[in-house]
Amino acid sequence: MLKAVSIPISRTISRYSKLISSSCDRFGSFRGPLQSPANLTKRKLVTDLKSQTRFSSSANTMAKSALVLIADGSEEMEFVITVDVLRRANINVVAASVNSAGPHIECSRGINIVPDLPLDEAIKKGPYDIIILPGGLKGAETFAKDAHVGKLLQQFEKEGKKVAAICAAPTALKQHGVFKETKLTSYPSFKDELSAGGYPYSDDNVVVSGNLITSKGPSTAFEFALQIVEELEGAEAASNVAKGLLLPR
Amino acid sequence: MLKAVSIPISRTISRYSKLISSSCDRFGSFRGPLQSPANLTKRKLVTDLKSQTRFSSSANTMAKSALVLIADGSEEMEFVITVDVLRRANINVVAASVNSAGPHIECSRGINIVPDLPLDEAIKKGPYDIIILPGGLKGAETFAKDAHVGKLLQQFEKEGKKVAAICAAPTALKQHGVFKETKLTSYPSFKDELSAGGYPYSDDNVVVSGNLITSKGPSTAFEFALQIVEELEGAEAASNVAKGLLLPR
Repeated sequence: MLKAVSIPISRTISRYSKLISSSCDRFGSFRGPLQSPANLTKRKLVTDLKSQTRFSSSANTMAKSALVLIADGSEEMEFVITVDVLRRANINVVAASVNSAGPHIECSRGINIVPDLPLDEAIKKGPYDIIILPGGLKGAETFAKDAHVGKLLQQFEKEGKKVAAICAAPTALKQHGVFKETKLTSYPSFKDELSAGGYPYSDDNVVVSGNLITSKGPSTAFEFALQIVEELEGAEAASNVAKGLLLPR
Repeated sequence: MLKAVSIPISRTISRYSKLISSSCDRFGSFRGPLQSPANLTKRKLVTDLKSQTRFSSSANTMAKSALVLIADGSEEMEFVITVDVLRRANINVVAASVNSAGPHIECSRGINIVPDLPLDEAIKKGPYDIIILPGGLKGAETFAKDAHVGKLLQQFEKEGKKVAAICAAPTALKQHGVFKETKLTSYPSFKDELSAGGYPYSDDNVVVSGNLITSKGPSTAFEFALQIVEELEGAEAASNVAKGLLLPR
């Protein structure tokens, strides 16, 4: 299902990007290579993805990549904080819409966001190092019902890859029967449902259990995103991004 | 410049909205009246705005309204957190694009957001109780250069109305010569510029000086937005929203 399309970039470019993107505002419009597919047409995205492979000849470093799902009713803060923080860490993020007919996603508080690609097209651009599910009840319900999302989650678990979910989204893990009996957290109102589903429940803001990263809600989204950065790029990278956010870590 | 179009809603509806929107996920897709103009066509928005006045006959409560600016290069977390948190408090938010040609705004980390209206059309839907400027260097530069934004800020200051700015955006206040000699804060890298411009500088996360509310950056955006809620709707409203965000206040 997931085709192999590697997206390496040079270590030099990656380090330079990290250096200057650590400041929130002075370089607010800077993004490293491949970090802004949202404004590209699909054709241009493909071209740019291919062009980046030129950097691979002189580097052993692979840029990490993340597939972030979004659907109507997704919590916009949880989605945006996650994508923004990961891009500050030079992680290649593709925001993929699930079961959406329109050109944009209507999030839970009425903010409309243009996804990078529909999920089926985003999958073709893989593989990804992590799949991330933001919260928002209606969006999480869509993730829980969608067979493609279920197949992806099962595949990621089987291949020993990372999965992250916040707020209402851990319920989609239960629905698709993945990461069974793995400790997790969620928005508190889903504690009973997840506990009854056999998931040992934690009240911590962020829980890392093997390849599963979960978190509680909007105000823990920064911690959630920084933990994902730490899991993918290491503690120093997370610390550097946190400094730019003015968030001691 | 600002026409008077009042948007009152009934106290009953307002209370009900507050009650059920305090939960982040269970009612993730709920929004009170007028809280989701982003998905409406301009014509539909106008119709809906007018239809809401029907509620005014049985209520003395005026819903508060906020004009939030957005431009290419705006910091998407600061924009989204502010709009989302204010809508959770049942404040009527209009997200107005400044100097944008396209159908959506490309934010600082490549997330594309569809604004509610261009600024000139949004102004006609006023008056607003507050004007809010998110950060992001390029977006803040656009706000600083735009004559309409300058006129609005000067008008708000003259009329004793509230203005809020975060991160790089306080530099736009200096550029337009408003709130001179008023204590403020910003992203730390603008401290020297603002101090030299005659603004007493504070290192606090959020600073309220009369009608001016300022804040430092992405990680202080929740505090910033909740302070705006407190200024417009009171401490209890801010506390209720904070609970839904899982943010003790």
